[in-house]
Amino acid sequence: MSEPLPRAVVLLSGGLDSATTLAQARADGMECLALSVRYGQRHAHEIECAKQVARAVGAAAHRIIDLDLSSFGGSSLFPGEPVPSATGSSRDEIPSTYVPARNTVFLSLALAWAEAAEAAAIYLGVNALDYSGYPDCRPEYLRAFQRMADLATRRGVEGNPIEIRAPLLHLTKAQIIARGRELGVDYALTTSCYDPGSDGRACGRCDACRIRERGFAELGLADPARERTCR
Amino acid sequence: MSEPLPRAVVLLSGGLDSATTLAQARADGMECLALSVRYGQRHAHEIECAKQVARAVGAAAHRIIDLDLSSFGGSSLFPGEPVPSATGSSRDEIPSTYVPARNTVFLSLALAWAEAAEAAAIYLGVNALDYSGYPDCRPEYLRAFQRMADLATRRGVEGNPIEIRAPLLHLTKAQIIARGRELGVDYALTTSCYDPGSDGRACGRCDACRIRERGFAELGLADPARERTCR
Repeated sequence: MSEPLPRAVVLLSGGLDSATTLAQARADGMECLALSVRYGQRHAHEIECAKQVARAVGAAAHRIIDLDLSSFGGSSLFPGEPVPSATGSSRDEIPSTYVPARNTVFLSLALAWAEAAEAAAIYLGVNALDYSGYPDCRPEYLRAFQRMADLATRRGVEGNPIEIRAPLLHLTKAQIIARGRELGVDYALTTSCYDPGSDGRACGRCDACRIRERGFAELGLADPARERTCR
Repeated sequence: MSEPLPRAVVLLSGGLDSATTLAQARADGMECLALSVRYGQRHAHEIECAKQVARAVGAAAHRIIDLDLSSFGGSSLFPGEPVPSATGSSRDEIPSTYVPARNTVFLSLALAWAEAAEAAAIYLGVNALDYSGYPDCRPEYLRAFQRMADLATRRGVEGNPIEIRAPLLHLTKAQIIARGRELGVDYALTTSCYDPGSDGRACGRCDACRIRERGFAELGLADPARERTCR
């Protein structure tokens, strides 16, 4: 009898980073519980991409939680406000696509599932280099979340805390793509665009599209998702 | 023209503690945005109590968020498992009614709303004395959440963080009830029971009922909710 694999909850958005993170968690020998949140974002086809990625990468389970953050407002990612086609903001500015406390809400849900499912770790695909300037993508934020989680949970109190892992934190977008290709990720299944067309096709102009395009370009590659949509 | 009141998001469960906390926030001069979560708990009549309390105490808004934590499992508060009628546990043990990461999820949602609504504070009714031994009711947990929230949000980054306030943290249940009576809280509108009957009436046997009963008894009072239900 072989030992069962340790479990991890993996936050899966349907984007390039979280697909790579899921593949990394699998490569780390984890049984992966993928978690997606339908939070009122304008690009609900993300969830379709997440389903395909979960299946392709081999998640043991995939749960989609409905949670309407858009009723709180506060972000241009919610329907009804234009997405700036290029932020033009400095690295010190937080762009309008920031969703208030989004990573905190997502990590909290992952923490709830991880504790109930006796998972050893939570994986998320945040990145502190080629990111959009969101405060909740920074290493110091993740350290503070870990500390809080250690105090919040039964596991933490019992001295066996759930570990927050962000394997892409210090990689460039090109390095992430290179890592994912080594791990066999099919990036045609992923989406990154903040403002896709009704057919799910990327706009090619928003911040997320530009960062993604630059990543593939640095590797001398074409983005395979340009020719495909997730629906 | 008078200055507008500062805003606060107040987590409102429909229980005694959160009703008192809402009244305290009003007494502190806040415009109160009450937030309740329908999270799959067995006692959905809590939400009815929360509605009545929000109206009676004078919340400026009351939002009820649907979020199915019960699909994660891990607590006897979810349907399908018996609630122990008395925990009999020592103060060092975490009882089966613990819901994994519940306060973390609730505070994260409050943080999302607070940031979007430009609220200055979040109020929650946790209590470190007459509580049930949950890790996420302790002062050190709240300090860690505050630190994390300061790093997570635009407000925090800009040096104007959203303050987490737990005005009942160091009060006994009797002191909470005395405070609430001074503030005019009608405890007949509140519910505390983990396992109420189908008519919403408290069981009188669970941990929450016993702590509540002891609080009123210490003040020489009868619990006004014993004669009423919230439906």
